[in-house]
Amino acid sequence: MRPGDPQTIGSLGELGFLARLLPTLRGGRGVLVGPGDDTAVVVSPTRRLLVTTDALVEGVHFRRGWLRPVQIGRKAYLASASDIAAMGGRPRFCLASIGVAPDFPSRDLAALHRGLGAAARETGARLVGGNLTRARELLVSVTLIGESPPRPALRSGARPGDLLYVTGTLGEAALGLEMLRRNAGARGEPVRRFREPPKRLRAGALLARSGYASAMVDVSDGLLQDLGHLCRASGVGARIEACLLPASPSVRRAGLSLLLAGGEDYELLCAVPARRQERVERLERRLGCRLTLIGSCVPARHGVRVLDERGRSLGDGRAGFDHFAAARRP
Amino acid sequence: MRPGDPQTIGSLGELGFLARLLPTLRGGRGVLVGPGDDTAVVVSPTRRLLVTTDALVEGVHFRRGWLRPVQIGRKAYLASASDIAAMGGRPRFCLASIGVAPDFPSRDLAALHRGLGAAARETGARLVGGNLTRARELLVSVTLIGESPPRPALRSGARPGDLLYVTGTLGEAALGLEMLRRNAGARGEPVRRFREPPKRLRAGALLARSGYASAMVDVSDGLLQDLGHLCRASGVGARIEACLLPASPSVRRAGLSLLLAGGEDYELLCAVPARRQERVERLERRLGCRLTLIGSCVPARHGVRVLDERGRSLGDGRAGFDHFAAARRP
Repeated sequence: MRPGDPQTIGSLGELGFLARLLPTLRGGRGVLVGPGDDTAVVVSPTRRLLVTTDALVEGVHFRRGWLRPVQIGRKAYLASASDIAAMGGRPRFCLASIGVAPDFPSRDLAALHRGLGAAARETGARLVGGNLTRARELLVSVTLIGESPPRPALRSGARPGDLLYVTGTLGEAALGLEMLRRNAGARGEPVRRFREPPKRLRAGALLARSGYASAMVDVSDGLLQDLGHLCRASGVGARIEACLLPASPSVRRAGLSLLLAGGEDYELLCAVPARRQERVERLERRLGCRLTLIGSCVPARHGVRVLDERGRSLGDGRAGFDHFAAARRP
Repeated sequence: MRPGDPQTIGSLGELGFLARLLPTLRGGRGVLVGPGDDTAVVVSPTRRLLVTTDALVEGVHFRRGWLRPVQIGRKAYLASASDIAAMGGRPRFCLASIGVAPDFPSRDLAALHRGLGAAARETGARLVGGNLTRARELLVSVTLIGESPPRPALRSGARPGDLLYVTGTLGEAALGLEMLRRNAGARGEPVRRFREPPKRLRAGALLARSGYASAMVDVSDGLLQDLGHLCRASGVGARIEACLLPASPSVRRAGLSLLLAGGEDYELLCAVPARRQERVERLERRLGCRLTLIGSCVPARHGVRVLDERGRSLGDGRAGFDHFAAARRP
């Protein structure tokens, strides 16, 4: 706590904090009643909705000192927005359920809300409600309600022969996490990527539109794990060429496991019917990020395989982030 | 852990648990894509939505042993549904964000989901999504998306002269909490009420309809605190007659503070224009619960007062439950 600002959320109290916070949150398109009543009342542009929830927990997803409060708020929001992007939708309304220890500074909690609200506005959404409760560790759970496109991109539409593309770059956030583990003061692009997931909403919407993508998933728990979800849902296998995976030189030097199983990339992985290859690749300049061909779907019996430059298989493709795997504790 | 079921959520893992849970959750009216994709895809009956989120935390709202896992799931859901009831709406879609320690038995986590899903179905809603993360204590955060009535009942519509009514009975859950604090094996109606919030959705919908209620709020943090919210939002004061407050003999014996500031009643408090008194009282038999006149709204300058049988004021009306007040730790 800094001098001149001795207030913790415990001393200010839930109601005292909300009395300060709520006036900063009012308004926004489609918001008839914002935070402060029993529920928010909103008008959705469509009746077809995308709904998702995700959480960021201190000691599981980050350690104190790795993220400033405003960055915690931004990251919690953007991680949820990534799920909306993977369906090709637009986030519209956001609710934040926050658990916080009584000694948490109320100004930090205000900063967390500011970060969350700002990231929401940048992507066309509004923070319309929430809940604040005491907890032993900081926990930020974000629920997003989004507008569905006419044909949301599911995980289940890929067919053998479809090409596999990934947006942006892989492994950068996982490298940033490793750097922070070694040194909480670490800096640079990987740390920046760990702190702030990319916004792939425009890319997701364009890829879902007109059925460019036969299936899509966001890469949040490591490429192989999320590819596995797509393959299981679609009933296909996959062949990935390791040398094609988009990564910075520093990530490539740090090793293939970061690229394949790193987690927190928040990029999009999509399957595209081969006949649409040319059209989808022409789309790249409008996506706001790279779109890289990394492999293709194969019949399910061939499983998921990652091949090196000589076509040799690099293991069985099972890996990724599990919150309950103790080894991954930050 | 019981013999024959050695699996904790830590050993089963997030994905292993979800692989068992998801097949039990599919389907339901308006659910195009249930849990298991990046987001759920749902079709809302209306574009006007009510959205709310609430959380139940071990060590804050309950101690282990006070609630069985299935009861934790039910209570987490019903507490959120109470907010929808207070607007006169209908819950439709539910998301559950759960934080749990790795040593939590996976069968208990399945029971928690069963309780949550069953309570949702009983009130016309479906569990369509969620998130599971590691945490130091059990935390269940429930987000509900509901259908708004044409005129949702806000906290802000009460006028001086309006009558104040409350559904059901007050103080029972708070007495149950006191009993459990003294003896974790306590039984009886108060304990039952602590474990399972009442469903006031039908009452809320009827009271909101045709503007019977000029303002409404759910009583979850103690009557005085929630009455205070209604009064501040409406710009009125209130006069409550202590002898009119609906309570069982055992709650009345335990003292007025349980009735006024107990918390977790999950009843509805509503203001009704005096000219509608007869009509609203005729409504009672259709509400599924008692509806009791407890006082009236007065000009704001008179504040919120509770009067005893001789018309003497019983304090200044500021009390209630704050999650951060250490004295309320269970």
